[in-house]
Amino acid sequence: MRDFTYYVPTEILFGRGAEADTAKEIRKFGGSRVLVVTGGGSVERSGLLARIEQGLKEAGLAYEVFRGAKPNPRLSHAREGVRRALEMRADLILAVGGGSAIDTAKGIAHGAANPDTDIWDFWCGNAPLTRSMPVGVVLTISAAGSETSNSAVLTNEENGQKRGLGHDLNRPAFAIMDPELTMTLPAYQVACGVVDIMMHTLDRYFNPVWDNDLTDGIAEALLRTVIQNGRRAAADKTDYHAMSELMWCGSVSHNGLTGLGGKQDFAPHQLGHELSSRFDVAHGASLSTVWGAWAETCLQAGPARFARLGREVWGLREEDDLAAARAAIRATVDYFRELGMPTCFSELGVGVQDEATLCEMADCVTYHGARTIGSFRVMGREEILAAYRLANR
Amino acid sequence: MRDFTYYVPTEILFGRGAEADTAKEIRKFGGSRVLVVTGGGSVERSGLLARIEQGLKEAGLAYEVFRGAKPNPRLSHAREGVRRALEMRADLILAVGGGSAIDTAKGIAHGAANPDTDIWDFWCGNAPLTRSMPVGVVLTISAAGSETSNSAVLTNEENGQKRGLGHDLNRPAFAIMDPELTMTLPAYQVACGVVDIMMHTLDRYFNPVWDNDLTDGIAEALLRTVIQNGRRAAADKTDYHAMSELMWCGSVSHNGLTGLGGKQDFAPHQLGHELSSRFDVAHGASLSTVWGAWAETCLQAGPARFARLGREVWGLREEDDLAAARAAIRATVDYFRELGMPTCFSELGVGVQDEATLCEMADCVTYHGARTIGSFRVMGREEILAAYRLANR
Repeated sequence: MRDFTYYVPTEILFGRGAEADTAKEIRKFGGSRVLVVTGGGSVERSGLLARIEQGLKEAGLAYEVFRGAKPNPRLSHAREGVRRALEMRADLILAVGGGSAIDTAKGIAHGAANPDTDIWDFWCGNAPLTRSMPVGVVLTISAAGSETSNSAVLTNEENGQKRGLGHDLNRPAFAIMDPELTMTLPAYQVACGVVDIMMHTLDRYFNPVWDNDLTDGIAEALLRTVIQNGRRAAADKTDYHAMSELMWCGSVSHNGLTGLGGKQDFAPHQLGHELSSRFDVAHGASLSTVWGAWAETCLQAGPARFARLGREVWGLREEDDLAAARAAIRATVDYFRELGMPTCFSELGVGVQDEATLCEMADCVTYHGARTIGSFRVMGREEILAAYRLANR
Repeated sequence: MRDFTYYVPTEILFGRGAEADTAKEIRKFGGSRVLVVTGGGSVERSGLLARIEQGLKEAGLAYEVFRGAKPNPRLSHAREGVRRALEMRADLILAVGGGSAIDTAKGIAHGAANPDTDIWDFWCGNAPLTRSMPVGVVLTISAAGSETSNSAVLTNEENGQKRGLGHDLNRPAFAIMDPELTMTLPAYQVACGVVDIMMHTLDRYFNPVWDNDLTDGIAEALLRTVIQNGRRAAADKTDYHAMSELMWCGSVSHNGLTGLGGKQDFAPHQLGHELSSRFDVAHGASLSTVWGAWAETCLQAGPARFARLGREVWGLREEDDLAAARAAIRATVDYFRELGMPTCFSELGVGVQDEATLCEMADCVTYHGARTIGSFRVMGREEILAAYRLANR
């Protein structure tokens, strides 16, 4: 087991009806004036937001609702939230929704606790983040894992950059997880979530360190659980067992546990972020689109690792590592396709791109030569371009 | 996934030399006056205590060392620690050692934060525990998992009772885990630790709920990791890989993760506690002594569960559940024996007991008829007696 630090202080309430305890949790973590961050739309149609509001009222908590969090959450919207939080003197930010609402809430919490700093400076590393405000979560989609993760991703519409911030102050104070709340999602969103959950573990599993036994064993158990229950959820999203396993997998996959001691890769995430910010496609769909191409580009960096994925997760019996590795990549891509997820640009619906656009995308991913991505295979402009070319069909 | 709540706010610093950050962690969690709780002995011989003291001095922290924590930690000693903590106006309790030092530190923290309550009242449920004091840990043995667990066990010498208290206020604020610190342990203690780690997961795995997919998958991955690295550690306790995997397994096995959504059993622990408090034997040894007898007594409550253990953890190919179940029990008991651990009373070194003593032990386990134990199979006096008879050879 290689060295690591690990800190996940988020209290989790998991199960049917858990959202009834929202006000109690807010009080427990010192909240009395709450900014409720949500996308609006589905949480209003389902009646969830009204139930949460009723609970806050009954508990005598002051609150305001801040709507409009969207997939690939926008910096400008988070900045607006900071203003609202400061105006109402909020002391706790409550996200009701999925990754977009949660990441927006994290941005607002950092901004409201540091009113003299523009929050984008935290995301760019121009200002150190040393304090924040408690964030609570009522989760409505199993995907991003932001409800317990140390990360938050924002997109700056001014320059098109989508950036993640990793910091323990991004860990929410509490997360309320009721699997029944995810049963009203469109099937496509459920499938996007399954891919996102798998990728949070795959992007840690593929890294240069292969001897963290417990970490790898947990990662493989999680992948098997997601694959099996992703199939069940695709067939019937009211299958409580499947939806609940996916929900818990979503948190564990991104809270750090499946990568402890490793040197996470996350190159597919970076390749996908460029697609999301350029074409505004769903995060999970961007990941399934690039993963196969990433895998083929990086296969030679470690066939044995792909082979292990094949044997431990996909149950392959191939003895030859390279053959098992190739079969593992096929099995993973086939599974994405089985879920109805795109595995190349045309399936993603963005069309086949010309070479100039691919070059531009590769340049953007490297911040125009300022960085490489990945650790399993370190990718510069050429490797990134090679991956985009493979996905461009 | 069945309902659960989960809260593990302990910050973990894992790796070689991690103890160098002890004073920094103490400051981070608000400590300025520290009672250092330790067994003495080995941590003095190894120079660890001197290094920790030096670090506290350099950081300008006031501290006192409170020695004498022993295996199966004593209530009277913890009470004495409360007096010492109050005298020095301690604001953080630092355990340097294993489960005994940590559980003693937890008792002291609860007592020092509630000076008007006798701490045994918390363990008996006569007084609710609503506040405590931060506890930090520098871990020196992989076994009890108390460094991140919500439990603490004390033995009341006045009446011979050994009782556990489960409460989230038992979670330490931080845990410093340097696997190299465990390399000076006697081989027998390493083996006791391996059994203890396995049992924290086995006592959760065997419960009436068999459909928590991720929980069970993590439990099985952990058991495979412990078994494999327990063998390596027995062969060479300076094997960093093995000792580090065991150390991380020790925490994960008892922090709750391997039982989420389940209804933990812990009957073998209760059977073992009676042996520990009666004969003052090592905790791990008491568990390996009773587990096989417990398993045979409870086999018919769920052969399929034992069969799954056999297939997923021991790699058995038996298709018939009952045959696989019996083979799984044999494999587990054989593994304990391979580690040099006792699997019956005579191997434990307490001799074969007469029937009257066995009856007395069964009565003590049930608090003289006031409780049953276990959940996989609920055990009353008769079932407990049956298990003790099987182990009594």
